[in-house]
Amino acid sequence: MSEPLKIAIAGLGTVGTGTVKLIQDNLNVLAQRTGREMSIVAVSARSRKNRDFDMSDMTYYDNAVDMAENCDADVMMELIGGSEGIAKEVVEVSIAKGRHVITANKALLAHHGTELAKLAEESGVALAYEAAVAGGIPVIKGLREGLAANSFDLVYGILNGTCNFILTNMRETGRDFEEVLFEAQELGYAEADPSFDVDGVDAAHKLSLLSSVSFGTEVDFDAVYIEGIRNISALDIVNAEELGYRIKLLGIARKTEHGIDQRVHPCMVAKDQPIASVEGVLNAVVCNGNHVGTTMFEGAGAGGGPTASAVVADLVDIARGTILPTFGVPAKALEKPIAQPVEKREGSYYLRLQVEDRPGVIADISNILKDEDISVKSLIQHESNPGKSVPLVITTQATVETAMGRSLEKISQLDCVLEKPNMIRIVSL
Amino acid sequence: MSEPLKIAIAGLGTVGTGTVKLIQDNLNVLAQRTGREMSIVAVSARSRKNRDFDMSDMTYYDNAVDMAENCDADVMMELIGGSEGIAKEVVEVSIAKGRHVITANKALLAHHGTELAKLAEESGVALAYEAAVAGGIPVIKGLREGLAANSFDLVYGILNGTCNFILTNMRETGRDFEEVLFEAQELGYAEADPSFDVDGVDAAHKLSLLSSVSFGTEVDFDAVYIEGIRNISALDIVNAEELGYRIKLLGIARKTEHGIDQRVHPCMVAKDQPIASVEGVLNAVVCNGNHVGTTMFEGAGAGGGPTASAVVADLVDIARGTILPTFGVPAKALEKPIAQPVEKREGSYYLRLQVEDRPGVIADISNILKDEDISVKSLIQHESNPGKSVPLVITTQATVETAMGRSLEKISQLDCVLEKPNMIRIVSL
Repeated sequence: MSEPLKIAIAGLGTVGTGTVKLIQDNLNVLAQRTGREMSIVAVSARSRKNRDFDMSDMTYYDNAVDMAENCDADVMMELIGGSEGIAKEVVEVSIAKGRHVITANKALLAHHGTELAKLAEESGVALAYEAAVAGGIPVIKGLREGLAANSFDLVYGILNGTCNFILTNMRETGRDFEEVLFEAQELGYAEADPSFDVDGVDAAHKLSLLSSVSFGTEVDFDAVYIEGIRNISALDIVNAEELGYRIKLLGIARKTEHGIDQRVHPCMVAKDQPIASVEGVLNAVVCNGNHVGTTMFEGAGAGGGPTASAVVADLVDIARGTILPTFGVPAKALEKPIAQPVEKREGSYYLRLQVEDRPGVIADISNILKDEDISVKSLIQHESNPGKSVPLVITTQATVETAMGRSLEKISQLDCVLEKPNMIRIVSL
Repeated sequence: MSEPLKIAIAGLGTVGTGTVKLIQDNLNVLAQRTGREMSIVAVSARSRKNRDFDMSDMTYYDNAVDMAENCDADVMMELIGGSEGIAKEVVEVSIAKGRHVITANKALLAHHGTELAKLAEESGVALAYEAAVAGGIPVIKGLREGLAANSFDLVYGILNGTCNFILTNMRETGRDFEEVLFEAQELGYAEADPSFDVDGVDAAHKLSLLSSVSFGTEVDFDAVYIEGIRNISALDIVNAEELGYRIKLLGIARKTEHGIDQRVHPCMVAKDQPIASVEGVLNAVVCNGNHVGTTMFEGAGAGGGPTASAVVADLVDIARGTILPTFGVPAKALEKPIAQPVEKREGSYYLRLQVEDRPGVIADISNILKDEDISVKSLIQHESNPGKSVPLVITTQATVETAMGRSLEKISQLDCVLEKPNMIRIVSL
């Protein structure tokens, strides 16, 4: 056996602690699988409190950047989080010092992935991030290695377990968003400040990385269109069921003739699509390869165990000597992505309106849609309550997003429309 | 860039031809992704007929073993098939000559995997077989690398697309096995002699490899219990729906306290299990890791494109220098598997009987079950037709397989039981 592989861990939260334990509990198995002994030589955390693992062989650092600079580890695990500040510095310093880096930090890579990948390649070290996308599911490996013979035109997924839990629970219990969010917070599935999750930012971070590794383009987080799930009502979910759909927050990256379309928003997905049955906190990623066809990876997208599993999978690769370009091709060869202009985005739409129940309302709305060349696919008004407020649901045939936006603007201004309309995109995948 | 990687291909059927084209069409992309040029230097096939690809730079061999012996390739692709004979010789000779081997041959590895893995490791070459299990789905990579931080106690899957197509089609159309098999043959989804597929042998080959890579044990194909789908009737499928199940041919490998249980047979699976919605020719593999939890891989399990995708993924690994132990740990370290004795197998059962509709029948059957300590969970007799033959469906609580076998034997001998009973295992996963 060669020299033991020396590991430093920056950040001892749930994932950091889970990773330490996974490594300590499996030293023999890992050595057998990789042909190399491993040892955690240094750790750093915000406080030096007693931990429930044996730290006696590790050097403790108060300052993670200090550790990155001065410890003697071959591999740095950055498990601090955040797109700027200490996490970024730890990664940069570690790379400069010739250490391999493993990170679970999607925010950091979404904002600085291309430049960090270039630095890592110049230093001849790995910048590995399996844990940053879809937690324990080995999807970066799947795309970059297992399906390396393919070109992709589409990759999409359920990338945020919190949102998927909330949407699943809303459907199962008929309750509204706020109530279910509260329960998710109680259960520990949602943060006290849930905005990163429920507003779609976390999913967008992950999508930008999937997009890069699938299409061989630089990470382009700023081009991701982002919309969260706060506007989804219990009624939307009932309507979706009736129309044959499930509502899912999807991240979708598509290569079109006009450029790359990256978007995170609630989607109505046909119930018989495999992704429609991915429920609860589970994540899933689906990709379309030109040779392999459609392939789906499904599993746990978050949590200490699954994330540590992915972090240690990267460690196993490094111990085995598998050091690959961060995004599948050398960072310098990544293409500059051209974002598809919003005017070129096409799709069908679901509209839920709250209207006054009187003759002429449907004519007014239909005329607005007609003027934008939008064909109605279905129109459902279940309740009848003359003179009062009733829900009206419209689905459209495929149209361009900008035409839909203009129509919605005009529809909102009609006297008979009593509340802000809700629009959900119907996606065919 | 280093020296070009030289490839020889033995076998130019659908997969071989698809692989040649995939490589020829993607030389630049593959070079970019691996940092290495590639070139197909030799091919061998049963006949030297004109091929629809450019063979001018390749040496043609009539005899694949001769090619394995004498060509100057670094990598041999064995795409001939069959557990003995030429395929085996090509692999053995190639390994002895120090060539890496990529094979799609599950039969060969199911029967000789351990010994070939040892030979490959002694020669310091790869024996790669992503295409042998679940076609294009990168599940060997997923288990051996992406989830390498985990121990597994369960791996199962839909491993034969022909059977899954037939079962899906039977459910959708209400037709019987023979009729749908005929259609599958017309469509090219089933062979003229379909026995390897429909009798479960092909799935068992694949399961024995999954089992080995999941549990770190020697390949033990002989220990796989195998039962195919010929006895599934249209009525069973209707009954399954009514009871809340789908019928799937699953390969299941489980580590129990009594040893490893490997089995391929039709299963009733709860409809809300993700694997229950894997339909048509698709394959899927599910594994339970102790850290990651349940992870599912789903996609195309057969066909030229998907299989070539997996073959070339192995090629990409070799070009990148990723040479791993065939079954995840060094072949010499693979444990000798102990098969779980059949007396220890537990589960619930579905029984479909054709009985005479008269008083006392249910009492007779119930007494037999009582004597074997088997509790009835449900009993359904929809039709009433006094004195005539009617179907009777019974499901049981969990019991041991041998008790069920004895009961079935006795039930078959009752005068009131007019046809051979059909038993399907209800699995909880």
